Amino acid sequence: MAAPLHSESSFEGKIHCDSLWFGADLVTLRDGRYNIIENGAMAVKDGKILWIGPLSECPDFSTGQRTDFGGGIVTPGFIDCHTHLVFGGDRSAEFEQRLNGVSYADIAAQGGGILSTVNATRSATHQQLLEQAEFRLRPLLAEGVTCIEIKSGYGLSEESELKMLRVIRQLGATQPVEVTSTCLAAHAVPPEYKGKADDYIDLICESLLPKVVEEGLADAVDAFCEHLAFSPDQVERVFNKATALGLPVKLHAEQLSSLHGSTLAARHHALSADHLEYATETDAQAMAASGTVAVLLPGAFYLLRETQCPPVELFRRYGVPMALASDANPGTSPALSLRLMLNMACTLFRMTPEEALAGITCYGAKALGLQDTHGTLEANKVADFVHWPLARPAELVYWLGGQLPCTVVYRGEIRL
Amino acid sequence: MAAPLHSESSFEGKIHCDSLWFGADLVTLRDGRYNIIENGAMAVKDGKILWIGPLSECPDFSTGQRTDFGGGIVTPGFIDCHTHLVFGGDRSAEFEQRLNGVSYADIAAQGGGILSTVNATRSATHQQLLEQAEFRLRPLLAEGVTCIEIKSGYGLSEESELKMLRVIRQLGATQPVEVTSTCLAAHAVPPEYKGKADDYIDLICESLLPKVVEEGLADAVDAFCEHLAFSPDQVERVFNKATALGLPVKLHAEQLSSLHGSTLAARHHALSADHLEYATETDAQAMAASGTVAVLLPGAFYLLRETQCPPVELFRRYGVPMALASDANPGTSPALSLRLMLNMACTLFRMTPEEALAGITCYGAKALGLQDTHGTLEANKVADFVHWPLARPAELVYWLGGQLPCTVVYRGEIRL
Ligand SMILES: [Zn+2]
Ligand SMILES: [Zn+2]
Repeated sequence: MAAPLHSESSFEGKIHCDSLWFGADLVTLRDGRYNIIENGAMAVKDGKILWIGPLSECPDFSTGQRTDFGGGIVTPGFIDCHTHLVFGGDRSAEFEQRLNGVSYADIAAQGGGILSTVNATRSATHQQLLEQAEFRLRPLLAEGVTCIEIKSGYGLSEESELKMLRVIRQLGATQPVEVTSTCLAAHAVPPEYKGKADDYIDLICESLLPKVVEEGLADAVDAFCEHLAFSPDQVERVFNKATALGLPVKLHAEQLSSLHGSTLAARHHALSADHLEYATETDAQAMAASGTVAVLLPGAFYLLRETQCPPVELFRRYGVPMALASDANPGTSPALSLRLMLNMACTLFRMTPEEALAGITCYGAKALGLQDTHGTLEANKVADFVHWPLARPAELVYWLGGQLPCTVVYRGEIRL
Repeated sequence: MAAPLHSESSFEGKIHCDSLWFGADLVTLRDGRYNIIENGAMAVKDGKILWIGPLSECPDFSTGQRTDFGGGIVTPGFIDCHTHLVFGGDRSAEFEQRLNGVSYADIAAQGGGILSTVNATRSATHQQLLEQAEFRLRPLLAEGVTCIEIKSGYGLSEESELKMLRVIRQLGATQPVEVTSTCLAAHAVPPEYKGKADDYIDLICESLLPKVVEEGLADAVDAFCEHLAFSPDQVERVFNKATALGLPVKLHAEQLSSLHGSTLAARHHALSADHLEYATETDAQAMAASGTVAVLLPGAFYLLRETQCPPVELFRRYGVPMALASDANPGTSPALSLRLMLNMACTLFRMTPEEALAGITCYGAKALGLQDTHGTLEANKVADFVHWPLARPAELVYWLGGQLPCTVVYRGEIRL
């Protein structure tokens, strides 16, 4: 085949790109730091960043679309790396009952708590789950989220877990956002398996996970390691099976007590260990050694009125990358804003704004194993970014609540 | 003048209205309770509610505009009864410095803190203050705010306080929201009056307030009663002058210590006493007797990581109406969401969702002296209301952050 006179990527000697974006400071988040390129420019081609640098050094690209932001800052698209966005039912009535003084025991007696979500999720149709999740997804997208992880874990039966995972996959196929799917069948012991948690783990390992893999329904496998959920031994069985099937693992660990689930997760080279209020120094050391990301969830901390903060200082000292997420779920964190999590991480956990922003970009990507393609503004990464008419990135953390104006670019195109 | 055959308000025997709204549950907030009218209807005429009740009992109005909400709930427009939305400068850098470990002393030494806002406000033009306030107003409006109070208090000189108040009046004249203006010249002792706070009080009483009244720039007068601001005696001088000039009063009281400013405010029949973390039982009794509203500000409580909650239980016991507000200000509560304050009031102060919602509607209006015209869905009140595609009002409190979809009706017309 003869080479064309002008290759597709050049025209009269110029390099071609699909679009060129300039006129703002680029907060690249490279290496988890702001690493701002003042008055920067980005050339985008085939949905990826082809070139990034100061406008003054920008090659003379040929392009059909030039966008001058006219000031402000550009950040990577936000990454929400831990959510339970797909679920049936509505727990707002229960939320209100608790505040009206109804006891936990009475709420449990009337079928409340996670069990009510499990029942509602089991009885919901695929379409109902999809539409409800879309409703919750909308505010997150409006705020700049371009990549989101969603977990199963309210089905707790083979059929219902598969149903949840299919809904998650359909969201990824139809919504303008990168969706990663995590199988969290080991979220709670199903009512049918009360006192027989090991039998449920058998079901997960021997039947469910192979089907999940066969249908390509999950990108990772998660579990909840806690006295009220699964023991480290049970979690390890799930992890061993996931690894044998070629799926990376994550873990809900050290939220309410110290079982060293995060050390277990690190030993299995987990992408992340999440919550971590009760993580210890040895947990932090193990996570640092394995490159496991600490995913902190200030929404649940806030709503549960926790007083034990995750050991941010230890994670800093040992170089454990910290991510932040909404934990969007019906019980302990019905959070529909990732930007609010930035403020809560700084206010409640005393993270710095730079650490917080890295937690929903650079290290949010790493918590999903997407660090090579997402999370920073760098050449060859996917062109997911957000323009904000703000003077500095700390404003994203500083303003408490409210929808700040922004323009979201997803895979190189403005998302409306 | 002969009477017309058909009066303006009837046509072929029907009563005429400008618009008719139905197909949703009306959360009226009458008397500070949900008081829901299921499947309700509202007729609006001349920007007011002409009739409200169940759709099944709705008279056969003649109207040019019928809106079927097709489900969901309607609440009164939200009222943010305590904000400092007009200010110059940007404190996000200082916010970041503090989290990066820079000491308060070092920040003060470089001109930080409220002084930086005072300097920036003094040097800003009217137009600059206006545009910055409009930027902050937008997210509040998007969330359903139809009435907002804005205070001066960063000028701290006659000229700059008047400038702020004129900006507030212009926002009211140009933005699609009811704006009430409060003169808070007694917010802090200006640097020029250090050690001479009484002289500044003289200036306020003898010169500033008469000018404010002459120009019609304020609807109320506020002060900050605290060791680091003004003493009860100084506040009382301001209150006496305001009362003589015919202006109602409010007070920042009991935020950091107990000076019984709220009892002082009650003695002067204040519309509200605000903050109140350190209010006592006698304060609550005095406020109940005078009908003074307790305005609680969970955003500042949260950001300052306060541990002393306002005495919600005492306010309940003595029947003190409780309002909630954003306290939107650059230092202690850069809050751009009133709905987030609902969640924080319930999570942090253990208010009920019903109390919280009454606090930004019924009692928000009362804190501004607008209880006869605003704050509830009742006949003869201004037609400010919001439609939400939600099943129950508790969802407004339950969802943590994020812009929920809504349709805002302001003075009888959909606000875009
Ligand atoms: Zn979770
Ligand atoms: Zn205030």
